[in-house]
Amino acid sequence: MVGFKLRNLGLPLRTTMPLVATIPEPNANVEVREVPFPDLELNSALLEVELSEVCGTDVHLQRGLLQGVPYPLVPGHVSIGRLSAIRGLMVDVNGRPFKEGDLVTYLDVHRTCNACWYCLVAKASTRCPYRKVYGITYGLADGLCGGWATHVYLKPGTHCIGVDARPKTFMAGGCALPTALHAVERGEIRLGDTVLILGSGPVGINTILLARMSGALRVLCIGAPEARLEAARQAGAYATLNIETNDEQARMDWVMQHTSGRGADVTIEVAGVAEAVVQAMQFTRDAGRVVVVGQYTDHGAIEFNPHSDLNKKHLEVRGCWGSDYSHFYRGVQIVSEPATATVWEAMDLTSFGLAEANEALAKVASGEVLKALIDPKR
Amino acid sequence: MVGFKLRNLGLPLRTTMPLVATIPEPNANVEVREVPFPDLELNSALLEVELSEVCGTDVHLQRGLLQGVPYPLVPGHVSIGRLSAIRGLMVDVNGRPFKEGDLVTYLDVHRTCNACWYCLVAKASTRCPYRKVYGITYGLADGLCGGWATHVYLKPGTHCIGVDARPKTFMAGGCALPTALHAVERGEIRLGDTVLILGSGPVGINTILLARMSGALRVLCIGAPEARLEAARQAGAYATLNIETNDEQARMDWVMQHTSGRGADVTIEVAGVAEAVVQAMQFTRDAGRVVVVGQYTDHGAIEFNPHSDLNKKHLEVRGCWGSDYSHFYRGVQIVSEPATATVWEAMDLTSFGLAEANEALAKVASGEVLKALIDPKR
Amino acid sequence: MVGFKLRNLGLPLRTTMPLVATIPEPNANVEVREVPFPDLELNSALLEVELSEVCGTDVHLQRGLLQGVPYPLVPGHVSIGRLSAIRGLMVDVNGRPFKEGDLVTYLDVHRTCNACWYCLVAKASTRCPYRKVYGITYGLADGLCGGWATHVYLKPGTHCIGVDARPKTFMAGGCALPTALHAVERGEIRLGDTVLILGSGPVGINTILLARMSGALRVLCIGAPEARLEAARQAGAYATLNIETNDEQARMDWVMQHTSGRGADVTIEVAGVAEAVVQAMQFTRDAGRVVVVGQYTDHGAIEFNPHSDLNKKHLEVRGCWGSDYSHFYRGVQIVSEPATATVWEAMDLTSFGLAEANEALAKVASGEVLKALIDPKR
Amino acid sequence: MVGFKLRNLGLPLRTTMPLVATIPEPNANVEVREVPFPDLELNSALLEVELSEVCGTDVHLQRGLLQGVPYPLVPGHVSIGRLSAIRGLMVDVNGRPFKEGDLVTYLDVHRTCNACWYCLVAKASTRCPYRKVYGITYGLADGLCGGWATHVYLKPGTHCIGVDARPKTFMAGGCALPTALHAVERGEIRLGDTVLILGSGPVGINTILLARMSGALRVLCIGAPEARLEAARQAGAYATLNIETNDEQARMDWVMQHTSGRGADVTIEVAGVAEAVVQAMQFTRDAGRVVVVGQYTDHGAIEFNPHSDLNKKHLEVRGCWGSDYSHFYRGVQIVSEPATATVWEAMDLTSFGLAEANEALAKVASGEVLKALIDPKR
Repeated sequence: MVGFKLRNLGLPLRTTMPLVATIPEPNANVEVREVPFPDLELNSALLEVELSEVCGTDVHLQRGLLQGVPYPLVPGHVSIGRLSAIRGLMVDVNGRPFKEGDLVTYLDVHRTCNACWYCLVAKASTRCPYRKVYGITYGLADGLCGGWATHVYLKPGTHCIGVDARPKTFMAGGCALPTALHAVERGEIRLGDTVLILGSGPVGINTILLARMSGALRVLCIGAPEARLEAARQAGAYATLNIETNDEQARMDWVMQHTSGRGADVTIEVAGVAEAVVQAMQFTRDAGRVVVVGQYTDHGAIEFNPHSDLNKKHLEVRGCWGSDYSHFYRGVQIVSEPATATVWEAMDLTSFGLAEANEALAKVASGEVLKALIDPKR
Repeated sequence: MVGFKLRNLGLPLRTTMPLVATIPEPNANVEVREVPFPDLELNSALLEVELSEVCGTDVHLQRGLLQGVPYPLVPGHVSIGRLSAIRGLMVDVNGRPFKEGDLVTYLDVHRTCNACWYCLVAKASTRCPYRKVYGITYGLADGLCGGWATHVYLKPGTHCIGVDARPKTFMAGGCALPTALHAVERGEIRLGDTVLILGSGPVGINTILLARMSGALRVLCIGAPEARLEAARQAGAYATLNIETNDEQARMDWVMQHTSGRGADVTIEVAGVAEAVVQAMQFTRDAGRVVVVGQYTDHGAIEFNPHSDLNKKHLEVRGCWGSDYSHFYRGVQIVSEPATATVWEAMDLTSFGLAEANEALAKVASGEVLKALIDPKR
Repeated sequence: MVGFKLRNLGLPLRTTMPLVATIPEPNANVEVREVPFPDLELNSALLEVELSEVCGTDVHLQRGLLQGVPYPLVPGHVSIGRLSAIRGLMVDVNGRPFKEGDLVTYLDVHRTCNACWYCLVAKASTRCPYRKVYGITYGLADGLCGGWATHVYLKPGTHCIGVDARPKTFMAGGCALPTALHAVERGEIRLGDTVLILGSGPVGINTILLARMSGALRVLCIGAPEARLEAARQAGAYATLNIETNDEQARMDWVMQHTSGRGADVTIEVAGVAEAVVQAMQFTRDAGRVVVVGQYTDHGAIEFNPHSDLNKKHLEVRGCWGSDYSHFYRGVQIVSEPATATVWEAMDLTSFGLAEANEALAKVASGEVLKALIDPKR
Repeated sequence: MVGFKLRNLGLPLRTTMPLVATIPEPNANVEVREVPFPDLELNSALLEVELSEVCGTDVHLQRGLLQGVPYPLVPGHVSIGRLSAIRGLMVDVNGRPFKEGDLVTYLDVHRTCNACWYCLVAKASTRCPYRKVYGITYGLADGLCGGWATHVYLKPGTHCIGVDARPKTFMAGGCALPTALHAVERGEIRLGDTVLILGSGPVGINTILLARMSGALRVLCIGAPEARLEAARQAGAYATLNIETNDEQARMDWVMQHTSGRGADVTIEVAGVAEAVVQAMQFTRDAGRVVVVGQYTDHGAIEFNPHSDLNKKHLEVRGCWGSDYSHFYRGVQIVSEPATATVWEAMDLTSFGLAEANEALAKVASGEVLKALIDPKR
């Protein structure tokens, strides 16, 4: 690899170097550091970050709960910004070249190999063992690879997408948008279905929005706290139930009352609690579908009854791991369309500067804020 | 309902009445009784039984483990025989009328309502709450409704199918055939897949046969005892493993060794043990499919890890309950075709007379025989 | 069949008999006649019609273009009204009995046999050869079987559905609603897709509405006249094109311009012109889907190129015939839900009395009105 | 690109250069030429060809009927041979490195971009506009890119697959195998279906074999000449009909006679005649499926009736273009498995030397031979 100096691009002289907020090691506080500008490889670019986000995965990263993470790490896997420098050619899926100044986001998954059995035979690229993820499995040693920074280095092969929406509108979806879109796609909702969402965090809210757009006549949501349930209703939930003040029997009764005594047609678990998976099975009608997308990390084991919870119900239970370019692309199109963007524009967001990243993590962990963003220009 | 005397049909005078083998009450021995000939309603028929079967469900019936069963009961839900009397019209799915003397079988599920939400909206007729099953939910009080008898009364609306195979060949499939066919259909096997079957009873053997016919390149089977594994290999299993002499780790190693270290593309659980459901998930490759068909009765609860066993694997787990006319019909066509019938002709069957039904139940319960038939003419 | 006199039900003495508007024979004018009240069979009912409709099929019926139609015929296959008399039990899909005074509609397809190969093996009940349709294949000789009447006789086995919407709102969908729902279902629209509708009649408008609800980000519509395109835009079409003022090349250019040069992801043909089927194929992107639902009657043959229009495009073309209970049920739920009903409430409807049926037919045939209703109380 | 001399690999000194059989320009005779050994790029290899094939596409190539073909061209897109030199690393989908001497084949499609809308959003890589095909869209100017040669240069990124079968067994499938596998996959055959194949060339024969393996109970085949129908029957066709001696009505009658008067459940058109596409629609039962895979080149336009041939039948017609790695991989597994390989081992093959390529083309064009191979060592 022969590097390419940014100054060769005739960029205005910068008096300051890029800043990143980095997790030095598991359970350590986030620190802001200065790092040098990268040399650009052929067909790569530099992104000036407008906004990045703080999601549940970042909390897990700070706590050292994910495997295969190279510390020190700059978190922020989904971000939006402007291309401040391009070397060579960066094109979109339609073959149109990007130009400097364009507002873009990029798929956080950088490399799926398109050569292994999972990519080529199973066509399950989210299980490709060679995938690399900006802000998660690319660490600081790999370069400017996280969105909690003034700049991100977009390596050759990065899939950029132009965004027509305002940065805040796109970030209201953030990483939750493709995750929710994949889950909803896997739920195979049919026109007129009643869909139950277990969980009311950012993925839950996006799932409600997208389930509504996918034909669900009524979307029910069980979650907490009350502020998030209010967000769920604003996102289009027909009815919500507070899990903290309703025990399992009360939840079951509530679901049955809203579903002619049968259970939901499709239930999507985004709760991040092992019990929720079994309740999802029990709250779903016979011959219905359950999508499990809230177990990205190990929330422990749980008991279920294969006879009554699965076989007799003729139920389908589908794990849903990660998302691929198609989910990300479709999500960006949806938030870029004025007619549909409004629902994301209304979402409640809280912005933090790079130096406030620890506070942002704490508030996301506690559920105090629905959605936290990192604004490196603050 | 106005009855119709059999003698009106000009049948030869019978010197003996029909005999049935009945379970008087849960946990009681089977008894042989004489019962009167039924009056035939319009568009009904009388079947002279050639063969019926003894399956795992019958063992459960004798032990009182199924709900909603009206004792005394004549077991035998799948049977084959000749139409000895028809009143009115009995037609096949092509609209062709049956005639007396025809060799037929009939769908054991007599009534799905075609009027309820499950039949009409969910199109999941195996979950219709109004279905009635010969030999299971129709008791002796409902008439000659079980196959452990010299005669069965085929009520109006019974779906008969003409059989071109020898009775023994058809009964080699028996009730296991539509059950296995439904499971294989739900497994969506693709050409070249490696399919793992957990269990080696009659449903397991039929599943092996049908998985092979559905595109599986290699079928693996874990079961016991050795005689059944030998039957599995004769049915086309590529390799088998004795569960009694291999612990969970040894099974896992064996599966991985036969699947390039990934696990089976599709696993079908027909074992009737709760642990097998979780092992099915663990023995299946990421983004693969598990079909659970061995939990028709309650085999207890079991613990699993939603993160590692389901969500991270991007797995689909599908309960499979009952079977409908399409599965039964397709199964009959397959065993009626000489080119495919051979595999069933080779199966090992043991016949018992009506008076030997208790012995048959005992040998099925112990796994001593692979497949037991009731031959009322013995 | 033993009849049951309405007077036995203690109904108030009626001074007038039911009125029907009937087509005496092909190409004859519609005439209003008095007919006697029917005797009610067990588990049947009498419906007092609030509204029925005049659709393209009725125009075909008047012109004698459909096969197997028994004249004289009372048209009006989809209608809404109140149950004025019930004998025995009429229940909904949840098993709840209807009571007199309930506002209901009913599936126009009265009998699918649930016994033939198409019903049971192919599970394609819209191709059941024994189905009978109110107002189309049931003629006046079969009783009060059409909605252009003050009363309809709901035979035993008729599938009624309670309606929570205003009659006008439901009839804005009318027979177009289940037809469109089936077509949209068969289109398998994915979140973010661009969907092209060819045709802007009532089915076209309903297809636009339902495609939007099913995840289409943008719906394009090519049709005429301008008033219907205005209705299309109000129904949510992103852009429309007048077919009368744009030749085939102009249409192609317009579609490509709105689809990044690829063609629509899904195209639904509801135009009722043979050419539209081939254009649908050409206006769709490679590996996309075309649904053909506008060819319920013979609009003639048309030439296409299997290489360039189909095989090289890796295209799927799906005929879509009729609709079943599930489509009708889902449609009723959607228009009964206040949140979704609004789009139908806004539709432009024109009502005619029984005596004005000929005028209604003429205006539907000419496209002068978007949607004509028969109001027997006018 | 920095080349890498073969001599650097320490290969034994070769006294002769590679030989290729090349089509200099459309409609010109094939000529044998000597060409220099290529320099190997990093992660590329040289294949010593054991066998290549002569298929219908090669006839089209010689006649100049395909677009985008760079002449002079060395035909032979599917081939098998031994890796005689590897520079760097060539791995299989399991990540296992190949070594010199390995018997391999390779996917003829060299580059699908994994970056365009068709690859990433539509997931329809056979429609990727950037794909390059050995022996078809790579010409002699691109290097040793065709199988009619003693050697093929396997560029970096070529997907090789190890073959456990004898070269002749694999080549009995050849390029027809993945094509047929894709078509059968797209036909979604269900257990017990009757499948009709229109055409009896190599793709037809492979389709029969694979349809049988995919659950078809009976496979019917209409084709010609008699020798190929004999091959069809040996491949497992239940019945065959000679198209040359049976007019359209006779064919229709024959199909209906074998399908209870309904038509085939699934029909696969591999005939390469436009009329066959419409007959496929007419020979298929209502609500069945038609796969069109015989129109890879333009065989002209044809008339059909959208009402009676498509819409009223509720039919699905699916174009099927090309094949991807998964089809090729699954095909190789199937012919590498002794239990399934036997059917290909029995196929009738005719081998020609490089100098006999013109004769081979003539015999394939006339249908005189079922399957012609090029053996460069002859």
